[in-house]
Amino acid sequence: MSVKNIYELAESLTEHWSPQVIASVNDQYIKLAKIESQLVWHMHQDEDEAFFVIKGEMKIEYKDSIVNLKEGDFHVVAKGTPHNPVAISDSCWIMLIESKSTLHTGEVQTEKTKSLQEQLSPSEIKNNY
Amino acid sequence: MSVKNIYELAESLTEHWSPQVIASVNDQYIKLAKIESQLVWHMHQDEDEAFFVIKGEMKIEYKDSIVNLKEGDFHVVAKGTPHNPVAISDSCWIMLIESKSTLHTGEVQTEKTKSLQEQLSPSEIKNNY
Repeated sequence: MSVKNIYELAESLTEHWSPQVIASVNDQYIKLAKIESQLVWHMHQDEDEAFFVIKGEMKIEYKDSIVNLKEGDFHVVAKGTPHNPVAISDSCWIMLIESKSTLHTGEVQTEKTKSLQEQLSPSEIKNNY
Repeated sequence: MSVKNIYELAESLTEHWSPQVIASVNDQYIKLAKIESQLVWHMHQDEDEAFFVIKGEMKIEYKDSIVNLKEGDFHVVAKGTPHNPVAISDSCWIMLIESKSTLHTGEVQTEKTKSLQEQLSPSEIKNNY
């Protein structure tokens, strides 16, 4: 019977690009993250990835276009599509909806890449999903 | 490359308890709804159902407890759990995350029950998921 307030939890995050799982819904995880600057070009071959902007502005860079996202905007990166998430505002908070199998930066491994364990064992959010 | 603003779309809805699909993410639909008063007791035997309160207040009645949800609150009704969603404030807007197979009022059929087709063919929201 857990209730998570996404505004309070997102605000409490201290590390950027470190998604934290707040809920499990069927075969998907719901995650919150603070972001700044860019992540990295990557893709998820078999999984869609949904972005919902809680606060601030960001953009999704595609190979041939850019999608700008402001507060309240919901956008789905289709599976198999190379993309690079980039924060526009200094402080941007997002919600992600991803398959439980989705890797943070897809097939790419960088110093920013977080393991699923790191997303599931947050020090800052008490989980009981 | 569709972008949906959930505040603008939720505000534009005119009918209560009539979820409208705004996006497809893997095997889940993302839906928006305006709600007032109560829906009906029902359950989804094999599917979790996530509620996110965009505006206003609501509660989920369970057989032995009540979960109150305010703006920004995220709550998952676990599969197989009888529940009754009830709006508290006059104007309550919610986002739902549900399996594509989920029936609006589960095994219960009422005059409020919306078919998946009604949720997928909104007159008010142009979809291209």
